[in-house]
Amino acid sequence: MSTPLSMAMVGGGQDAFIGAVHRMAVRLDDQIRFVAGALSSTPERAKVSGDALGLRPDRNYPTWQALIEQETKRSPEERVDLISIVTPNDSHYEIARACVEAGFHVVLDKPMVHSSQQAADLIAAVERAGTVFGVTYNYSGYPLVREARHLVQQGELGTIRKVIVEYNQGWLSTKLEASGQKQAGWRTDPARSGLGGAIGDIGSHAEQLLRFITGLEIDSICADLTAFVPGRELDDDVGMLLRFTSGAKGVLVASQVCTGEENNLRIRAWGEKGGLDWRQEQPNELILRKADEPMRHLRSANPYGSPAAAAATRIPAGHPEAFIEAFANIYRGVADAIRASRGENRRDPELPFPDVHDGARGVQFIERAVESGRSDRKWTPARWDPDAE
Amino acid sequence: MSTPLSMAMVGGGQDAFIGAVHRMAVRLDDQIRFVAGALSSTPERAKVSGDALGLRPDRNYPTWQALIEQETKRSPEERVDLISIVTPNDSHYEIARACVEAGFHVVLDKPMVHSSQQAADLIAAVERAGTVFGVTYNYSGYPLVREARHLVQQGELGTIRKVIVEYNQGWLSTKLEASGQKQAGWRTDPARSGLGGAIGDIGSHAEQLLRFITGLEIDSICADLTAFVPGRELDDDVGMLLRFTSGAKGVLVASQVCTGEENNLRIRAWGEKGGLDWRQEQPNELILRKADEPMRHLRSANPYGSPAAAAATRIPAGHPEAFIEAFANIYRGVADAIRASRGENRRDPELPFPDVHDGARGVQFIERAVESGRSDRKWTPARWDPDAE
Amino acid sequence: MSTPLSMAMVGGGQDAFIGAVHRMAVRLDDQIRFVAGALSSTPERAKVSGDALGLRPDRNYPTWQALIEQETKRSPEERVDLISIVTPNDSHYEIARACVEAGFHVVLDKPMVHSSQQAADLIAAVERAGTVFGVTYNYSGYPLVREARHLVQQGELGTIRKVIVEYNQGWLSTKLEASGQKQAGWRTDPARSGLGGAIGDIGSHAEQLLRFITGLEIDSICADLTAFVPGRELDDDVGMLLRFTSGAKGVLVASQVCTGEENNLRIRAWGEKGGLDWRQEQPNELILRKADEPMRHLRSANPYGSPAAAAATRIPAGHPEAFIEAFANIYRGVADAIRASRGENRRDPELPFPDVHDGARGVQFIERAVESGRSDRKWTPARWDPDAE
Amino acid sequence: MSTPLSMAMVGGGQDAFIGAVHRMAVRLDDQIRFVAGALSSTPERAKVSGDALGLRPDRNYPTWQALIEQETKRSPEERVDLISIVTPNDSHYEIARACVEAGFHVVLDKPMVHSSQQAADLIAAVERAGTVFGVTYNYSGYPLVREARHLVQQGELGTIRKVIVEYNQGWLSTKLEASGQKQAGWRTDPARSGLGGAIGDIGSHAEQLLRFITGLEIDSICADLTAFVPGRELDDDVGMLLRFTSGAKGVLVASQVCTGEENNLRIRAWGEKGGLDWRQEQPNELILRKADEPMRHLRSANPYGSPAAAAATRIPAGHPEAFIEAFANIYRGVADAIRASRGENRRDPELPFPDVHDGARGVQFIERAVESGRSDRKWTPARWDPDAE
Repeated sequence: MSTPLSMAMVGGGQDAFIGAVHRMAVRLDDQIRFVAGALSSTPERAKVSGDALGLRPDRNYPTWQALIEQETKRSPEERVDLISIVTPNDSHYEIARACVEAGFHVVLDKPMVHSSQQAADLIAAVERAGTVFGVTYNYSGYPLVREARHLVQQGELGTIRKVIVEYNQGWLSTKLEASGQKQAGWRTDPARSGLGGAIGDIGSHAEQLLRFITGLEIDSICADLTAFVPGRELDDDVGMLLRFTSGAKGVLVASQVCTGEENNLRIRAWGEKGGLDWRQEQPNELILRKADEPMRHLRSANPYGSPAAAAATRIPAGHPEAFIEAFANIYRGVADAIRASRGENRRDPELPFPDVHDGARGVQFIERAVESGRSDRKWTPARWDPDAE
Repeated sequence: MSTPLSMAMVGGGQDAFIGAVHRMAVRLDDQIRFVAGALSSTPERAKVSGDALGLRPDRNYPTWQALIEQETKRSPEERVDLISIVTPNDSHYEIARACVEAGFHVVLDKPMVHSSQQAADLIAAVERAGTVFGVTYNYSGYPLVREARHLVQQGELGTIRKVIVEYNQGWLSTKLEASGQKQAGWRTDPARSGLGGAIGDIGSHAEQLLRFITGLEIDSICADLTAFVPGRELDDDVGMLLRFTSGAKGVLVASQVCTGEENNLRIRAWGEKGGLDWRQEQPNELILRKADEPMRHLRSANPYGSPAAAAATRIPAGHPEAFIEAFANIYRGVADAIRASRGENRRDPELPFPDVHDGARGVQFIERAVESGRSDRKWTPARWDPDAE
Repeated sequence: MSTPLSMAMVGGGQDAFIGAVHRMAVRLDDQIRFVAGALSSTPERAKVSGDALGLRPDRNYPTWQALIEQETKRSPEERVDLISIVTPNDSHYEIARACVEAGFHVVLDKPMVHSSQQAADLIAAVERAGTVFGVTYNYSGYPLVREARHLVQQGELGTIRKVIVEYNQGWLSTKLEASGQKQAGWRTDPARSGLGGAIGDIGSHAEQLLRFITGLEIDSICADLTAFVPGRELDDDVGMLLRFTSGAKGVLVASQVCTGEENNLRIRAWGEKGGLDWRQEQPNELILRKADEPMRHLRSANPYGSPAAAAATRIPAGHPEAFIEAFANIYRGVADAIRASRGENRRDPELPFPDVHDGARGVQFIERAVESGRSDRKWTPARWDPDAE
Repeated sequence: MSTPLSMAMVGGGQDAFIGAVHRMAVRLDDQIRFVAGALSSTPERAKVSGDALGLRPDRNYPTWQALIEQETKRSPEERVDLISIVTPNDSHYEIARACVEAGFHVVLDKPMVHSSQQAADLIAAVERAGTVFGVTYNYSGYPLVREARHLVQQGELGTIRKVIVEYNQGWLSTKLEASGQKQAGWRTDPARSGLGGAIGDIGSHAEQLLRFITGLEIDSICADLTAFVPGRELDDDVGMLLRFTSGAKGVLVASQVCTGEENNLRIRAWGEKGGLDWRQEQPNELILRKADEPMRHLRSANPYGSPAAAAATRIPAGHPEAFIEAFANIYRGVADAIRASRGENRRDPELPFPDVHDGARGVQFIERAVESGRSDRKWTPARWDPDAE
């Protein structure tokens, strides 16, 4: 085994959800070790959180600024390779930019930043620094999502005509944010969450999954955003028609008020020759339909799977892998890219991960969806054209 | 058993699909007997078709005009009670109106007629005649569709916020109409099918199912209609956002180019308290989700079912009933209404069926969807307002 | 259409379950018309039942003896072609034999008779009379059961090694027979039901389905029969190991105390090359597994289906057909055989139906299973060898 | 966080399957760290394997004997707490006994040892040493398996009458062992695998799952064991009837020649009041049936779940957890027990794990099943009675 990479985390302390997932994900493959952190925006809390996770006191920082400053001073051998940023959205830009400019590789939660302008700045910073930058659109890490992409690329569907992607949850059906629940609190707060509620939190996952699998480019958007729960400022429900540059059409649904739903992300796409169907809640099965043939249910870790899918599995067929494993596959790709950047290996094309450009696309998508939601025009262009402004 | 009613059929001869379904449906319950017909637009073909089905020569008519004329002359005891019209859409209005005006009860396929004006005329004719008029939105005949409606009416979902209804088929993925296939031929021909392709053929089923189960009233429509197959004049794919008068939102999808799909009609609705999910291809199961409770899978013909669902079943739980049985339930309602119109029984509220008003709604829906599809405005009002024209 | 055949029914009056299913089944295809009956063992009840079903008074017989006698006296044109016997098991032998000996074609419910001796007598009678004799092992009428058989015959599974067939119900989990429920009453009563409870009522369906699909011959049986509900005399639960003459092995489970189950009949078989899986409660899907290939889900009425499956469907793919339609397919085969016996058509090999030999196999299976259940020997031979007695 | 425990591994080097799973499992929760090993029976291979996994040279031992000897010499602070033994079955007894007698806590793969006599010796050794001893019947680690057990204990099913447990795989449908595949090689070799093939490899999982969930005690066994693949010495297929001491009945099926199956472990149990159904390949769903109520589909990580299920989950509902996570739950229990043995915490009753007694039960079950398979007697007692020998 190559020497493991070392990682610091910003955010992800007590009461946080996703930070713990990142830590489990990196531990799973043991390619990256979590050794430093600034785990909360409150120094006291950061300290307590880091202690609870067994960080060495000298690497358990009170603030992300201290983390960057102190880690930068360490020798290249000791310095963390990678900083994972899992804070609420409003601090993403500032922290990520500082990390990149200090020369650290970065993994950042989605949505990446609050505006396309910030996204463009961050792209420029990453290009200047030449560092690796991953965005945890984690659903693209599932083996059968990669199989689906492979099938599309192989032409199994023919030219795609229609895509339906849905992401339905029910956890915000009531005004949970009024209860003090931390996750609900920041995700429904425009100051911390940004322009979008459901569209940013889950709609952007749907958009990235669609793009990852189908390769389609959104041309224009027609969105209806709703805040169903009284007193909620951001959308908790999205319905959207899509037109792609290829002429294909799409429907995107994202809702957090589908009472009783858990985390029901599903994508279907149909082309001239066939259709596919994948659901996150049963991630080890992918349905492929061809005209006048029996439906095929592909399952993960089988010999008929593509190299891309195989590279995303750890155990044999019938031994289900799930959310954490898929999440870990994003880090697999990031670790591979970091090592490749050092000349330790060639970049493995079967270990893709969403990068700063994907992050920028996601931000733009949220902006344009929100704009469409406010517009009486049927179609809002999907791409931000800085020259036109 | 009461004396069976007698029925004539217009259309439904050789090569037709749905006429045979109507005949199986009426035979299943033996409340209505098929005794006369004008089974094709071509007299020779009508004759041959009627012979093949065992019609008595004197009731095997060359034309629907002859059928009406001759049946009218028969004694009330012998005359058919009911005329079932299963011709292509373009002849619906003329035939149905003539049947109603001659005093016959009518069952008519959907979409009912070609325009709201025709629909209004037909409503007026039915009201004048006082006859029973059913429209075969047959999916509303499934026991668990009636259970779903019951659950909504009982408040199990609370106020509904979101509805997704989909009707995906793949049979028109290629230019089947160029092959001479009769069903594809008339359904893709504006002269015979009317304004809408997929929107009329299957989208209108989706609309009626939505309305039947949820009771919601569509306020405005934002539709994107596409003809994907080169050379096809009518839409073969529909994506649609809906706003309801209650403030609820909806998404409707209907496509005939979802390669590999068969007849995948599905409806989901979520309210403040719960959500439901029903699929036509597995019609004997209805999923009910409530916040923080295990999902419930209701199955047909169980003791926990509502009277409405029970009235739509014939055999015990675990003995699946399906499409023909559901179709027959529409005729059950029509037969009950005919008998009630004669004072033979009280109208049974558990035997509903779609009537001329439902048919008119469907026509309007198609018109407005097509209008929206052509419009740059985001929202097109769903209702036809004659005063505004 | 050929002139419909005419049918009389013995049994199936008020409170009966299966008689009504037979009547719906024959009406569905309109090849056989129900015109006469002796619908109950009580003359008064028979009369009332026949009136309710609209039988002509002169063909609404007080007893099955009167039915045979009077129908025999009618002219060949008017006389019923077929007698359908749907009485409790204890009267099957006497009635069926009399019908056969009077020259009528017969459809009889399973289990056919009470003993192998009776079965042998009945076989002899049928052979003497040269009449058609069908036994309603109705599950073999499902299109995808026929597809499964076809796949086995085509060698898609290779040599079969293992079969698991299960038939689980829950309706007898409590002592329902004590409530006066008629179905539970006779089925748990040795005098009327015969040697077997669950083994006869549903286990014999499982046995026939296994034989129909796989073509395997049972060599020996190891059964454990239980009467779980206190005070019940006949078995309500069966577990069974099977050895086939080919060397294949099997497991058969049949239970009526699986609380909450409805009518869960399922068969799986695996051979050297593949496996199949079919469930009665989702009858329009058949799963085919091959080594190192994606699972295939075959659905009914598709172009890839076999002629045998196609001959058992009425409507297009995606329009589910179910229990009544499958039941009607048994009558399709019987009608075809009756017409063939008259020279009206050639016998269609795609319209198979279980006959008197299948009925005899079923009786023997019940006898041997009950014998095994009482034995301390592990293996009981499956076949009755009259010479050995 | 408490200081992590430290673990050594015996076996699990190159080409091994399950050792890597153990290592991922322990990393997931970071309560146990893998720091030492004797990873192969060949010293060179052991060395290479340990290097590849980053073991410190002084803790990368050539043999398990060296591991025990050297680790014993280390200070209590440095010495490993736990030794995980993942070798082929034939070496389990000797290694495990030596580890226990040297005072190490142990995790051992199943089947535990080759004979009941060895199992009894090991029980005695563990009792003398007072150490923690876990056996990786990993399927009992799934959250919904624990929920199922909880439901049984709460009486949701009432008195259990019938259990069906199946474990079907297809990977040994061909003579894979002849290809040099390592897993197939030792598992089909009596010298290394022991008395049983499929019965030991997977049948014993089925037995433990059954016992864990239902609490039933097997009274007697009637087994049919088959080696279908020509030239194979050990069984690759098992069918089995079970009688429980309570009077309940069961069926157990385990096969490795079910072509096309992956790792299809399923358990169903029905009692007087209800039934449950769980499948390993869709582990996040548990079906509960009650008489005359809608089926309930319980899903993991929901608020309605039991504390036992909650203690086995890491992420919210809808974020599936799977095989590795379930495996890690066995280690969670072991770690808790080790800490409790040191007085660091009270033993948490919601973190159960299979122990040396469960291991002994499994061994006995295999012995008795094999004995039954060879016997002409129908029933073989399930328990080994040393006094009777």
